[in-house]
Amino acid sequence: MSHYLVVSADGHAGPPADQYREYLDPGYREAFDEHQTQLREMLELMRGDKSREDFVEKWEHLTGGDGGLLAAYDSDHRDKVLDDQGVAAEVLFPDADVLGTGRIAASPFGSGLGGGAGVEPDKVMAGARAHNRWLADFVSQSPLRRIGVAVVPILHDIDAAINEIRTAREVGLKGVLIPTRWFDAPAYHDDRYEPVWATCEELGMVVHTHSGSGPADYGLGRGMMAIYATEAWWWAARPFWVLVWSGVFERHRNLQYVIAENGAWWMADTIFKMDEKYLGSHNTEKMGNAFREDLSMKPSEYLDRNCFLAASTPGVEDIERRHLIGTDNILWGNDLPHPEGTFPYTRYWIRERFREVPADETRRILGATAAGLYGLDVARLQPIVDGIGPTAEEVHGDVPLEKVPA
Amino acid sequence: MSHYLVVSADGHAGPPADQYREYLDPGYREAFDEHQTQLREMLELMRGDKSREDFVEKWEHLTGGDGGLLAAYDSDHRDKVLDDQGVAAEVLFPDADVLGTGRIAASPFGSGLGGGAGVEPDKVMAGARAHNRWLADFVSQSPLRRIGVAVVPILHDIDAAINEIRTAREVGLKGVLIPTRWFDAPAYHDDRYEPVWATCEELGMVVHTHSGSGPADYGLGRGMMAIYATEAWWWAARPFWVLVWSGVFERHRNLQYVIAENGAWWMADTIFKMDEKYLGSHNTEKMGNAFREDLSMKPSEYLDRNCFLAASTPGVEDIERRHLIGTDNILWGNDLPHPEGTFPYTRYWIRERFREVPADETRRILGATAAGLYGLDVARLQPIVDGIGPTAEEVHGDVPLEKVPA
Repeated sequence: MSHYLVVSADGHAGPPADQYREYLDPGYREAFDEHQTQLREMLELMRGDKSREDFVEKWEHLTGGDGGLLAAYDSDHRDKVLDDQGVAAEVLFPDADVLGTGRIAASPFGSGLGGGAGVEPDKVMAGARAHNRWLADFVSQSPLRRIGVAVVPILHDIDAAINEIRTAREVGLKGVLIPTRWFDAPAYHDDRYEPVWATCEELGMVVHTHSGSGPADYGLGRGMMAIYATEAWWWAARPFWVLVWSGVFERHRNLQYVIAENGAWWMADTIFKMDEKYLGSHNTEKMGNAFREDLSMKPSEYLDRNCFLAASTPGVEDIERRHLIGTDNILWGNDLPHPEGTFPYTRYWIRERFREVPADETRRILGATAAGLYGLDVARLQPIVDGIGPTAEEVHGDVPLEKVPA
Repeated sequence: MSHYLVVSADGHAGPPADQYREYLDPGYREAFDEHQTQLREMLELMRGDKSREDFVEKWEHLTGGDGGLLAAYDSDHRDKVLDDQGVAAEVLFPDADVLGTGRIAASPFGSGLGGGAGVEPDKVMAGARAHNRWLADFVSQSPLRRIGVAVVPILHDIDAAINEIRTAREVGLKGVLIPTRWFDAPAYHDDRYEPVWATCEELGMVVHTHSGSGPADYGLGRGMMAIYATEAWWWAARPFWVLVWSGVFERHRNLQYVIAENGAWWMADTIFKMDEKYLGSHNTEKMGNAFREDLSMKPSEYLDRNCFLAASTPGVEDIERRHLIGTDNILWGNDLPHPEGTFPYTRYWIRERFREVPADETRRILGATAAGLYGLDVARLQPIVDGIGPTAEEVHGDVPLEKVPA
């Protein structure tokens, strides 16, 4: 029986606040306690939406009462959950939960998916260092199956960021998470970030952005959360064209960049339109040479060579458009332990999405491409895969599944 | 022979600065001269891109040396150009040229497509009033064929904006152009704008936003123009979901809203995703009731009832996706006299896009829907249509055309 190697390109991990506290430089512990108090106050403000509370109750039930958070830091439990879900290895981002299900398990000082918005830069960097220290320990407890992504705030102190990237590499982490938004700092087309790209290329550290950092230019008001949810994909997609058009992948041909938990569907139109501009279109003719001055290839060629979409819990349209995007540029992920992920029905959702996809394309999207990108030891993973990986019959056939959504 | 009624839902008009000056309240004329000087200085900074200058030279040649700007304010000449292009009537926005071809013909104080960014609000309002006065005169010279859209800055002084909307209605203008971006003002979900929506609904004034106001959160640097061009559609699309999700069309069921010069292709994915959220999706379940609290219908139903895409110079994908968007929500336009428009090859481009489109759908997109929306006197336009409108044979057949792109 042939089993698929499944690699989740989007997992989240992090310990409870009392453990994070120990990993923080002592000078930041008091400020950390204050920040945690603020988070708990925000949590209080979110109560009262009946349909949201019903959802949290359902999620409690599905996760056996811990909201999935034990798996966020307990090494043995994490591996057990992965086994159950058929996942051999995974990429680990921060922020196992930030208020989403009424809990707090977040990289200190908002240094994680929020990119450190609204917090003093030195605290954000201290929070990132604490997370990265913890993460290196967590990875070392199951190194074959865990790909650690260091949190690296690059918006303010570039030298400190470079140091943190080098440290992360030394302790075995394989990538860096940079803020998805640049807020008031210069955008990523600015030359100030060149040392970041150069260092990541030199060390083979994969650069990541991750959805979750939304727009800031509207306040509370009618429809606010719906507007946020509608826009979120775009803010998380934005670094892609900023990096491509400013020639980052032209100057750093070996740099690898992953856009996590942001689907893939949008790339079909995005890259078509970018290529159209590069090749010369009537609509943009008056802009002269703007689309060619920093690039020697079409935007789609940088996508092919340098970029990946970690499309966790992919939708039908993510999979259907794979040939417009590049089948080898799409990585499956399950967003464990976030409730919008596929847990506890991962095997069901893999079948739903890949039943009609040819086996070789399934193999690449589900894990082979990620294994190559992150340099996994596939030979040593094979016994795990043989024990837990979904079989071709399970994915493309009618084998009954144990867990299916109610 | 059957001729199509062609209505351009996207034209631009405005006089040279010396004429605008006369329409300004006298107290603003000195400041206007200073602002014009600043624009001329920006123009100087743009020189030097060889491919851009080649393009300007080609455009000069195509337009007989005036860059198309005589048509922007000379009534007889405008009608002659429309006749030549087969266009019976058109919607008139400001900013016939803002530096695009090395010229300045723009609504005073950046009050036009730029939404008054960076200029004191009272000057922007004074500039808008001047444009609207001029526009009312221009419309009155050929009232059957011209649909005037008043410039109305709504970001600062709401009372003044309401007054200007009423004045515009009294002098025969049929719609208002509001800033596409809200900059530092509250977003359009804010209740402060309720009087604007209510007044426009009451008076039957069609609300418009128009592309051209780009992002402001990155500075000069590599790839800047390419990044701008890639993002422009999104900034111009954004008011759509802000207005829908905040329930503006729920509370104002007769309000009509047009998104001009921003294609239509993006609406297919946008409205699918919005409906998906409204109907309840796994990804957004944890957000509870956020997608339903202000709406009694699906987002696509507000699109159907209240919104239109003035997709000037449509691309293949705008037309191909018409059934995903709503054939009756798409208005053709030619962007005259902008060089990215179809002039002087409008008949050619109509054939290119509509050759395979059924005649009834062609009829609605090319003009019938716009005629209904803006209340055109179709019976009185008929003699013009019979004289200049493209015939069904010309659009769907092989009749040789006089002008085709070289």
